[in-house]
Amino acid sequence: MAHRAMTVTTPSDREIHIERVFDAPRDRVWRAFTDAAQLASWWGRGNRLVIERFEPERGGHWRFVEHASDGVHGFEGRFREITPKERIVWTFEWDGMPGYVSIDTVRFEELEGGRTRVVNDSLFHTTEERDGMLGAGMEDGLAQSYAALDRLLAGGEARAQPAP
Amino acid sequence: MAHRAMTVTTPSDREIHIERVFDAPRDRVWRAFTDAAQLASWWGRGNRLVIERFEPERGGHWRFVEHASDGVHGFEGRFREITPKERIVWTFEWDGMPGYVSIDTVRFEELEGGRTRVVNDSLFHTTEERDGMLGAGMEDGLAQSYAALDRLLAGGEARAQPAP
Repeated sequence: MAHRAMTVTTPSDREIHIERVFDAPRDRVWRAFTDAAQLASWWGRGNRLVIERFEPERGGHWRFVEHASDGVHGFEGRFREITPKERIVWTFEWDGMPGYVSIDTVRFEELEGGRTRVVNDSLFHTTEERDGMLGAGMEDGLAQSYAALDRLLAGGEARAQPAP
Repeated sequence: MAHRAMTVTTPSDREIHIERVFDAPRDRVWRAFTDAAQLASWWGRGNRLVIERFEPERGGHWRFVEHASDGVHGFEGRFREITPKERIVWTFEWDGMPGYVSIDTVRFEELEGGRTRVVNDSLFHTTEERDGMLGAGMEDGLAQSYAALDRLLAGGEARAQPAP
């Protein structure tokens, strides 16, 4: 399906812009992003994700730990803004590069046919950090997570989760 | 004393550069920045400061709560780098503007006569955030904190702390 393609562009030297369309209404996609149990099933590329903290409100914190075949990866940040069904703005930091913080703005756009476009803009402090994120496989990782989200939205399980 | 003057410049549209000289050797100033009890006595403009978390190592977190006459202010962040006696790189975020994160690099330079120059470079994601920080009284607040640090380094108490 052509609309499953993810587009990745770099509108400035410190930004990454990503668009992806999902086969589900905006309300449904919003819940997949803001309900902890649903988020856990897709956010970590379909791998087991432990949600240590998730407070989706202005000033709230989040911390997720992904248990993948290539290791255990912690991620964390804080919510700057939550506008229900429209917009989430949160900071993003990976334990492997502590203190390197991007600002991620996620927008949810209703499309015809009960579909939803998710638009993600990430802003970094420097071009090097932006390029480091691209070089670290952000694009592949996100594509895998979004594929897991497709499966969740289709009503199935994101993937059988390995035991701890 | 002329060297007590703090110089504040804006080397680019997203940075603030601050220099201040202290009448104490570098080892002594380093301890005042990295020992929690000492930090508590000066960091919050001499006001009572509750150190909820302070892990001065790469990846460690910090969180301070200042109890001032104008209210209670929480601040937090994470350490990107600690190079003993030379350099601290940490993120800085105020609870009042959650998700707005600057990167602060503090350098400690030995000077003749047993003095130390502390150089602080802050990098923001946008010019608006930088200007917001300047407009919020960062300069006055830091000058008050550094005056409290002068008192600590002179061997006295930073200020009598009010009861909780």
